[in-house]
Amino acid sequence: MKGVFDVPAELEPLQAWVFAGLEATTDQIDAALASDIPAVATLCKHVERFRGKMLRPTLVLLAGSAAGAPHDVPASSDLVKIAAVVELVHMATLVHDDVLDEADARRGGQTINHQRGNETAVILGDYLIAAAYHLCSTLPSQEPSRIIGRVSMELCAGELLQLENRDNLSLDEATYFEILEGKTAALVGACCLLGGMVAGATPEQVAGLDRYGRRVGSAFQVQDDVLDLTGDEAVVGKTLGRDLKKGKITLPLIHHLGALDAPSRGQALGALEAVSESGGDDDSHSGAIVTALAETDSIASATTTAQRLVDEAKNALAPLGASPARQTLGLLADAVLTRDR
Amino acid sequence: MKGVFDVPAELEPLQAWVFAGLEATTDQIDAALASDIPAVATLCKHVERFRGKMLRPTLVLLAGSAAGAPHDVPASSDLVKIAAVVELVHMATLVHDDVLDEADARRGGQTINHQRGNETAVILGDYLIAAAYHLCSTLPSQEPSRIIGRVSMELCAGELLQLENRDNLSLDEATYFEILEGKTAALVGACCLLGGMVAGATPEQVAGLDRYGRRVGSAFQVQDDVLDLTGDEAVVGKTLGRDLKKGKITLPLIHHLGALDAPSRGQALGALEAVSESGGDDDSHSGAIVTALAETDSIASATTTAQRLVDEAKNALAPLGASPARQTLGLLADAVLTRDR
Repeated sequence: MKGVFDVPAELEPLQAWVFAGLEATTDQIDAALASDIPAVATLCKHVERFRGKMLRPTLVLLAGSAAGAPHDVPASSDLVKIAAVVELVHMATLVHDDVLDEADARRGGQTINHQRGNETAVILGDYLIAAAYHLCSTLPSQEPSRIIGRVSMELCAGELLQLENRDNLSLDEATYFEILEGKTAALVGACCLLGGMVAGATPEQVAGLDRYGRRVGSAFQVQDDVLDLTGDEAVVGKTLGRDLKKGKITLPLIHHLGALDAPSRGQALGALEAVSESGGDDDSHSGAIVTALAETDSIASATTTAQRLVDEAKNALAPLGASPARQTLGLLADAVLTRDR
Repeated sequence: MKGVFDVPAELEPLQAWVFAGLEATTDQIDAALASDIPAVATLCKHVERFRGKMLRPTLVLLAGSAAGAPHDVPASSDLVKIAAVVELVHMATLVHDDVLDEADARRGGQTINHQRGNETAVILGDYLIAAAYHLCSTLPSQEPSRIIGRVSMELCAGELLQLENRDNLSLDEATYFEILEGKTAALVGACCLLGGMVAGATPEQVAGLDRYGRRVGSAFQVQDDVLDLTGDEAVVGKTLGRDLKKGKITLPLIHHLGALDAPSRGQALGALEAVSESGGDDDSHSGAIVTALAETDSIASATTTAQRLVDEAKNALAPLGASPARQTLGLLADAVLTRDR
């Protein structure tokens, strides 16, 4: 899709249908956030700018199409409502994440917390969540509300587990994936699951779409870790330092520490602590770590993991018949690995 | 009820039924928050201490009983679920409010933000909201989810309007009540409305119960304003200073400023600004304001407003037949005015 990969000619009609669906999704979000209170309306207007590539609504629409939603007519209002719900949940997490990260800027605009203070950002995030749940509860079936409620709990549990493990340089791989599953994969899985469900997918297809989304979400995050550590060495050192300072442990680092014997591991942990404390300003240590990561093939190992997740994602689509939408979901999964950022 | 007013003998069977319902509500909340992740379980255990008098679940149960829920058997699971949902929403607002207020202690325990940092408090609040919505979506009808979604939006809009008007010493009465309606009254109204709805109340009874709850919630807040300004003058001066420093304008102050001519009003605003800046440490100014409030009968005026709201609350119960529960709702409304804190 636009900005993610080049669309082959045979997929263009589907792409046009998705774009129309995304426009309808935008209108639905605007309607869901409408408020008579000028202060609320202004804030919601500002937060609109946070909408990026609308990846999650795109997945809802593609999953719907792959499950049989006709694409010679506009996307149904239920599919569009689900698309709006997941994007609202995602926007809420962005607003609250910015409070957590004390971020000043997002997508070229000032963050709400920077512009209006943490109080406003916390409540605005709550408003977005409430709007998401309210919109979801207007669907004919209650099942999407149950799923969105459960996934939101998973999302928060993942964040809490991550906060609990902040500065835990010895984070193990199982906990890394548990955090990933909650923080990222669960909502991406729900996008695909719900899109399929609303379009009338069988239980087997719904389960396959959920699995596809979870694997794609995980692969995206693992690939993010890899991209953080590849490229110009000075930049990588800075990124590594910034990540470590924030207490963010990436998969290549976990692999690296696991591949070392006890004395080397102790040494490596010491170097990581030094980088973490300097926040990346001390280039000598972070440069040494990047070199050491190569010696244990840790970046290659993470790349292999991301590739495996993408393969699993594509295999999970087996219960769905061939269709332009299924083909596109496959291309999207591949694009996770080929993107440069 | 316990800690709010003395219960006449004829209401004791109802009281026992409510207490049993509240115990079931507590179990329901614990079940809704259960998590396999130890970090999440520990935080939820901590937040349990924030449950106070369980006023909102009590209102759900009483409204249910007033609308015909039999009280010779335990409260039905749907009524108990609703009671748990509203308390979870309320607990979430407490956790997020503590982030806003930068509070260190609540109900004798350390606040989450003080103990674990703002990040954890924001996400834990989100977890509580998600648990509330999820539990609500397991009810047989989707109507409660719609109402909880709408009321949560009202709640946030009220908070945002209040934040927008922080430090606005010239806040007008209409905006004061708009904030109050969203921040406090809407959720209290929903407690009564939903309790009645689940117990099979008629639309007229449901509307009456909503109105009762909203008026009681508003009366409670207005009476809080009055109690802030009555009693020992030195203490009142301190409270006034603290409120003003937080940018909190109370109803008696609004009345006072409205009762003055233009030059006196300018003088009074100057004095308020001085108290606001000193945060109550400058007793001379705050003492003068308390004296001036008496001259314009501003505290008496707010008391009259609270009394009117309580009368409206009791009148709103007219569509319900006489019952111990209706009698208790009336006593609860009266207790808003007679409580000393």
